[in-house]
Amino acid sequence: MRTRPLKVALLGCGVVGSEVARIMTTHADDLAARIGAPVELAGVAVRRPSRVRAGIDPALVTTDATALVKRGDIDVVVEVIGGIEPARSLITTALEHGASVVSANKALLAQDGAALHAAANEAGKDLYYEAAVAGAIPLIRPLRESLAGDKINRVMGIVNGTTNFILDKMDSTGAGYQEALDEATALGYAEADPTADVEGFDAAAKAAILAGIAFHSRVRLDDVYREGMSEVTAADFASAKAMGCTIKLLAICERAADGGSVTARVHPAMIPLTHPLASVRGAYNAVFVESDAAGQLMFYGPGAGGAPTASAVLGDLVAVCRNRLAGGTGPGESAYAALPVSPMGDVVTRYHISLDVADKPGVLAQVATVFAEHGVSIDTVRQQGRQDGDGEASLVVVTHRAFDASLSGTVEALRNLDTVRGVASIMRVEGE
Amino acid sequence: MRTRPLKVALLGCGVVGSEVARIMTTHADDLAARIGAPVELAGVAVRRPSRVRAGIDPALVTTDATALVKRGDIDVVVEVIGGIEPARSLITTALEHGASVVSANKALLAQDGAALHAAANEAGKDLYYEAAVAGAIPLIRPLRESLAGDKINRVMGIVNGTTNFILDKMDSTGAGYQEALDEATALGYAEADPTADVEGFDAAAKAAILAGIAFHSRVRLDDVYREGMSEVTAADFASAKAMGCTIKLLAICERAADGGSVTARVHPAMIPLTHPLASVRGAYNAVFVESDAAGQLMFYGPGAGGAPTASAVLGDLVAVCRNRLAGGTGPGESAYAALPVSPMGDVVTRYHISLDVADKPGVLAQVATVFAEHGVSIDTVRQQGRQDGDGEASLVVVTHRAFDASLSGTVEALRNLDTVRGVASIMRVEGE
Repeated sequence: MRTRPLKVALLGCGVVGSEVARIMTTHADDLAARIGAPVELAGVAVRRPSRVRAGIDPALVTTDATALVKRGDIDVVVEVIGGIEPARSLITTALEHGASVVSANKALLAQDGAALHAAANEAGKDLYYEAAVAGAIPLIRPLRESLAGDKINRVMGIVNGTTNFILDKMDSTGAGYQEALDEATALGYAEADPTADVEGFDAAAKAAILAGIAFHSRVRLDDVYREGMSEVTAADFASAKAMGCTIKLLAICERAADGGSVTARVHPAMIPLTHPLASVRGAYNAVFVESDAAGQLMFYGPGAGGAPTASAVLGDLVAVCRNRLAGGTGPGESAYAALPVSPMGDVVTRYHISLDVADKPGVLAQVATVFAEHGVSIDTVRQQGRQDGDGEASLVVVTHRAFDASLSGTVEALRNLDTVRGVASIMRVEGE
Repeated sequence: MRTRPLKVALLGCGVVGSEVARIMTTHADDLAARIGAPVELAGVAVRRPSRVRAGIDPALVTTDATALVKRGDIDVVVEVIGGIEPARSLITTALEHGASVVSANKALLAQDGAALHAAANEAGKDLYYEAAVAGAIPLIRPLRESLAGDKINRVMGIVNGTTNFILDKMDSTGAGYQEALDEATALGYAEADPTADVEGFDAAAKAAILAGIAFHSRVRLDDVYREGMSEVTAADFASAKAMGCTIKLLAICERAADGGSVTARVHPAMIPLTHPLASVRGAYNAVFVESDAAGQLMFYGPGAGGAPTASAVLGDLVAVCRNRLAGGTGPGESAYAALPVSPMGDVVTRYHISLDVADKPGVLAQVATVFAEHGVSIDTVRQQGRQDGDGEASLVVVTHRAFDASLSGTVEALRNLDTVRGVASIMRVEGE
């Protein structure tokens, strides 16, 4: 074994960074044996050096992250700051100065992945980011490497623990969205401003990363269709239960049937209780992968948290260190297929539509005609008089598979019918 | 991209080999893009060349596998023959002659892994074997690489599809073992001689491989405690249901609580219906991994079959080819921890014991005394008179956790009690 240590610079020392530092210390011998050389924490860049950090030598702490990544003796920079800047500049500078990079930064990878990969390639260094998607779950490496000889057709998963916690709570207790969000906040599962989670921005970033890897193409955050889950109601869960389903916020990346394009999207969807994703509880994540040869695979585990995310970061750190010792790099960006990303309208899906309609003869015929005019075939209709004497009834329609554009066009046309008083809820149905 | 192709020799062209050859042809462009050079099938060694092989150039087919692996121009040898010989000699010869090796051979890796890894290390070539465990499920690479910065404490899984099909059938239909086995045979899930599957030899080989990787130690097939599932009865399933469990054949690799040794075992066990492994249906496989930092992870997918196994083989082929182009190798054997393997008696587990006893006062006290004398604490006891007037009753005892040696010692002592007419069933309880 080499005795001269590999030097690691840590950018950020919050929940994840402090766990990375802790494990680097407590498991130093194991890491050295697995890498073939010791690894040494050579510097820790933080914003507030005054905060006490147990187990970290104060002499290593600096507020000047740029100087740290420019030092020249750093082998690997671990970036766990998050956000776009200064993370982007620091990673780029680190690569230019000869360091390999391990990042957990989903937002940055989703927005600027291509440029960062190009910088890594230019520098001849590694850029690894297993921790950017689904926390501890090995997912990037299996998609990039284990399935490198297969053709992936679909990646569908629960990739945000906060929203899964909220939806699971609504499902199991009948709570409304706000009540479940409040509990998630109280328990530390949701941030004070939950927008990035509940509006699906976090999941969309992960979908962009997963789609890019799965389809060997470039998929940016802007390419991902996104609907959050803050408008999901207890009534939606009641509708889902009535058809043997539950509701999950899903990230779905698909290859089009003709193979010529791909789509990526994030939205709440009903899935059958028999689907493996339906039983993913609490803040756990799970990702379902469908490929030509392997068939259906699922990866399950904790999607966030300091220690789980640190596990993914350290797995990357070991790989990157091994690559440096061997004088090479691991697989870089693979975007050779260069498949275009189609808009949401081109996605083939199913809708569950709940309508408030006038309770009189002929309404169903009128509604059915609108579906037919848009080329959307109906699977089931359930019609219920409300029995409260106001002359209204509810109509629940589940469609067969159709282009999302046709389905949303149908909904628009239904809104314009005199006999339709309102569209109570629309939800896509997946996993069948 | 390099234009000179990497040459691949395929040893074996059965269910898996023919799929490997087919995908190499149909996905040639994708493989070339992902590797950075074309791959070419340069020879196929088979026993019976007369059998027609669709899509394979007859000029490539040979019965002389040794000459093929000695050719010197072969970059990668893919071994999908199975069994110990001639696979072992061919792999060794291939490595000596400069080829990298991809193997799907669990029996060989479990028996001679250390020697084969040493040969690969000596030759400076790769030996990859993702397909040897759990078919298409990415498992070896996640354990070896993704979790390389973590400390794995437990690997517990369903790693044999045949036995899971049989047990699932018994569970869902109430069928007996023979009936379920007959159906598995008729459907092609079980071989004409099902011994390797139903007696747990196949799962034990996989347990040895998984334990070695997870604990960075050498674990051989002989180190794995093994009980098959051919004696599991419909009555066992009824008992399992009564306590909210089902029965699975599990491979379990554990680090001892003190960290100083490991155990590996295969046996049928009751697991709670709420455990993720309980809902693994049919011939699917799933493996649960517990580690210090990542927590609980699960990997799920098809554990066998031509195409799924070929997916894993081709993932390895891409990695090995990339390594050759870069002039290096991937991670080799990691056995630095050199933890000893403890015998089954040292495993801490729980027993579900069903006794036929005399239906008279004092029996429970007598039985409870035997448990106490062996230091085994009882969790629950259920006593049922048989109501058929023969003076017998049944006693179902579920223990707390104890050393397996204490538990099996207890059972031996119970057998010697006058009032115990017979031990109707013993089953370990896991996953709680």
